[in-house]
Amino acid sequence: MIKLYWSPRSRSFTAIWLLEESGLPYQRVLTDINTGAQKAPDYLKINPMGKVPALVDGDAKLAETAAICAYVADRYPETRLAPATDDPKRARYLQWLFFGPSCIEPALIQLFTKLEVPSRMAAWGSATQVFDVLDAELQKGPWLLGDHFSAADITIGAGLNQAVRVFKMVPPRPSFDAYIDRCVARPAFQRTEKIAAG
Amino acid sequence: MIKLYWSPRSRSFTAIWLLEESGLPYQRVLTDINTGAQKAPDYLKINPMGKVPALVDGDAKLAETAAICAYVADRYPETRLAPATDDPKRARYLQWLFFGPSCIEPALIQLFTKLEVPSRMAAWGSATQVFDVLDAELQKGPWLLGDHFSAADITIGAGLNQAVRVFKMVPPRPSFDAYIDRCVARPAFQRTEKIAAG
Repeated sequence: MIKLYWSPRSRSFTAIWLLEESGLPYQRVLTDINTGAQKAPDYLKINPMGKVPALVDGDAKLAETAAICAYVADRYPETRLAPATDDPKRARYLQWLFFGPSCIEPALIQLFTKLEVPSRMAAWGSATQVFDVLDAELQKGPWLLGDHFSAADITIGAGLNQAVRVFKMVPPRPSFDAYIDRCVARPAFQRTEKIAAG
Repeated sequence: MIKLYWSPRSRSFTAIWLLEESGLPYQRVLTDINTGAQKAPDYLKINPMGKVPALVDGDAKLAETAAICAYVADRYPETRLAPATDDPKRARYLQWLFFGPSCIEPALIQLFTKLEVPSRMAAWGSATQVFDVLDAELQKGPWLLGDHFSAADITIGAGLNQAVRVFKMVPPRPSFDAYIDRCVARPAFQRTEKIAAG
């Protein structure tokens, strides 16, 4: 059975939401970052970065939140969380899956630290550009791939919810509010909120 | 035929290397960032972020370098650049594919700007941790998945070459030098160096 190593009130939220959406049986293994459990030698064999979340599925072991989403969605096509490799929608799916770590995360760091990075050096351009592009895309809705809710909505939806509502680092916009509302309305999201609170 | 939109001396290097390794026919479309071609309205329809590289393959369009690597490797399994979805090696493959944008890129920004970010907030932990983990992994070699050269080596190898040799932002280590040497020795890498120089 899939094991998810997680900690309350951490970046584990996204991976929990993914597994709750998947319908797959899985076991959560509490790895409390407040006790330093993520630096224990046995855990470092699973994720040498000493961070949560991480996932073990038989012989497969991996970390990095978006990578976990990509893995589960492709390994278990019955979850319908990813377009097939020969579906043209696969391209945008992958772009949005990587957009979280590649663009949203650094944009949030930039907002938090008020850091100036030359836009040619910054793979994400600028925080303004990241949220403008996301705004334009989310106006199309309901999901990033149209009617198909995918793992990309889980990474982007969880990130946007945190940025706009939890940490209030990004001002609300109508498209963001409507999208976050659609995410929050999902039963799997609501179960995740309870689980992730610890 | 696959079209790759690129610019000389830019982050396009990784995507060019991937296509050169793939053996697939493709066409390079010069999109010179020194002339602002990446902000032209027609190009923004391909990548609304207005950055290179981007890839068009029939109806499929996408940007984000690591996403392009993931797309091509899965769409064309004959390239042998990704483990199959039911191969346990797929897990580490995906972890390393996301490690570039998720960990190496922000670590380099951190080194460049001397930015202090609390390690709990930083998804990448710290620059020291990122390069220590990579060092330990690359000591196993020859490639990230053992004997199987994959698209993850292209994203990590290109990033490490830039960090250590091109921009000299990361001090050399024996494992880094040996790995970069193995990358540079590949004929596809050498063709890419000539192409990317413009």
